Amino acid sequence: MSKVLITTVPFGDKNRLPLEMLEDAGIQYLINPYNTRLTEEQLADLVTDFDVVIAGTEKITDKVMTRATNLKLISRVGVGLDGVDLLAAKKHGIRVSYTPEAPAPAVAELTLGLMLTLLRSVHVSNGQLHQGKWQRIFGRRLAEITVGVIGVGRIGTRVLRRTRGFGTPRILVNDLVPNYELSREFKLDWVTKEQIYKEADIITLHLPLTHLTKNMIRRDQLMTMKGDAMIINTARGGIINERDLSEVMKSGHLSGAAIDVFEHEPYVGPLAEVDRCLLTAHMGSMSVDCRTRMEIEATDEAVRFLTGKQLASEVPLVEYDVQSQGL
Amino acid sequence: MSKVLITTVPFGDKNRLPLEMLEDAGIQYLINPYNTRLTEEQLADLVTDFDVVIAGTEKITDKVMTRATNLKLISRVGVGLDGVDLLAAKKHGIRVSYTPEAPAPAVAELTLGLMLTLLRSVHVSNGQLHQGKWQRIFGRRLAEITVGVIGVGRIGTRVLRRTRGFGTPRILVNDLVPNYELSREFKLDWVTKEQIYKEADIITLHLPLTHLTKNMIRRDQLMTMKGDAMIINTARGGIINERDLSEVMKSGHLSGAAIDVFEHEPYVGPLAEVDRCLLTAHMGSMSVDCRTRMEIEATDEAVRFLTGKQLASEVPLVEYDVQSQGL
Repeated sequence: MSKVLITTVPFGDKNRLPLEMLEDAGIQYLINPYNTRLTEEQLADLVTDFDVVIAGTEKITDKVMTRATNLKLISRVGVGLDGVDLLAAKKHGIRVSYTPEAPAPAVAELTLGLMLTLLRSVHVSNGQLHQGKWQRIFGRRLAEITVGVIGVGRIGTRVLRRTRGFGTPRILVNDLVPNYELSREFKLDWVTKEQIYKEADIITLHLPLTHLTKNMIRRDQLMTMKGDAMIINTARGGIINERDLSEVMKSGHLSGAAIDVFEHEPYVGPLAEVDRCLLTAHMGSMSVDCRTRMEIEATDEAVRFLTGKQLASEVPLVEYDVQSQGL
Repeated sequence: MSKVLITTVPFGDKNRLPLEMLEDAGIQYLINPYNTRLTEEQLADLVTDFDVVIAGTEKITDKVMTRATNLKLISRVGVGLDGVDLLAAKKHGIRVSYTPEAPAPAVAELTLGLMLTLLRSVHVSNGQLHQGKWQRIFGRRLAEITVGVIGVGRIGTRVLRRTRGFGTPRILVNDLVPNYELSREFKLDWVTKEQIYKEADIITLHLPLTHLTKNMIRRDQLMTMKGDAMIINTARGGIINERDLSEVMKSGHLSGAAIDVFEHEPYVGPLAEVDRCLLTAHMGSMSVDCRTRMEIEATDEAVRFLTGKQLASEVPLVEYDVQSQGL
């Protein structure tokens, strides 16, 4: 009997359908018994006789795959592949699928919420009122500022569409390859990352974590930003250096930051000491509808594979190239 | 020499133009020396020999006006007239102006930010992470829910326009008089307040404070709402009974609330004991652009009046009727 290990948690929580899909197909499954992101060691010990992993953002390394002698498919709930060593997977003959479209609406909508919260210091005022302090803080509207979007793929495009809906006059964008088709729909300025750091009032990141983006924003880049600039990371932990961000903010630079993703999760660290740093627990894709869609799509891949059907959303070769070329 | 008392604070803070307008016209002014909302007594003591008050939300009562023997104009920075006893003003021959359009964009945008924050429990997660706790909380997107807007004037209309931009499928609206013209632009359901209480997932209030709306939402109305409903008040304190709201939420009812306005400000009270109650310090209109526009418009009225010109934005008679009929 085929066995599926579900590492991402929560799973099947708001909607049991993915679990029922497995049950109906006669597939045995185990949900991560630790109920938190697995370490490499925990996963290596757990994974030994499973055929498929329905995976979260934990690290699935060569070492893990070496122990997983039955493993034939990794089906990622989500879009980021930084946790999966694709080249090792190829070596071990393990195929990899993902759900690239499903998280985008939820991540983009959270990003807009974080923008509006930062712009009006809602989090700061909320903290003050809960401590009995009252201070009317000035804010700005999206229509008053320049927004910088780094990474204009599925999520970044949605973010700039919504931002434009609020009348933002100037949107600076950067990506490896400019998408001039998008510029026909929106007035966009394709600029360097350095220009975004210098000129944007809010900078939001919608990039994968790769060797190119890891530690992309350190002290130097942060200090280039305007003193009252704000930065949002709903992409991946590690793109902004967390220690540098906390030190720079403690020195008074930047008027706000919203960080949803961390290098090590659950996050414990110095950003928690900065009141104007808004922190959320990797909740970008955590809307009931998007999370359900992600779980169903990833489960569907597992069922398709184990019942001899073609995969519907296998990771394309370009992602293997990105990892092998250290992009 | 003409003398203007500016009671609302901060004033001329982000943009000195309103102060320069007074200086250029040779008008003497005093900014509220208490730097917080004036009590009736403080105002009565201060106001005695001023010709014009550029006013905030403090109470300008018959008693205050009786002491203000020189007062000829109250120029409100903002739209709400619940603080001004219009009938007493009429009796004392004091004219009243306001700035009805200026605050709307800022209040509507804050309201959207509060909606997105509540829907994703951003404030709850932020509080947890700052205390070293990590819990991935499920949320919903605007496209998944029913929004109820009570009061569809300048601000309510903007809120439903933005909400529709996020794909909200069902918007329930209520006002004293349904605006069917608006229904031609948007698919709206004009319903009773009771139906909104029962069926909406987020309820947002955009009403003036009048005898009709004071304490409009008490325990009974709150308990009619869905257990996981959310409520937002960026209109005026006192429309929702604060004690009832805090008790109902402490009992576990409602999944969130965002309260920007309070019966007594600065607010100190039991809502601060409820983590999922998001509190802000009356910051609806506090975007730099809108606040500046409000201050300039209200100052312009003072200058017009004191230099013998016609008022540009005098409060219309219907507002006097509303107060005299206890609406």
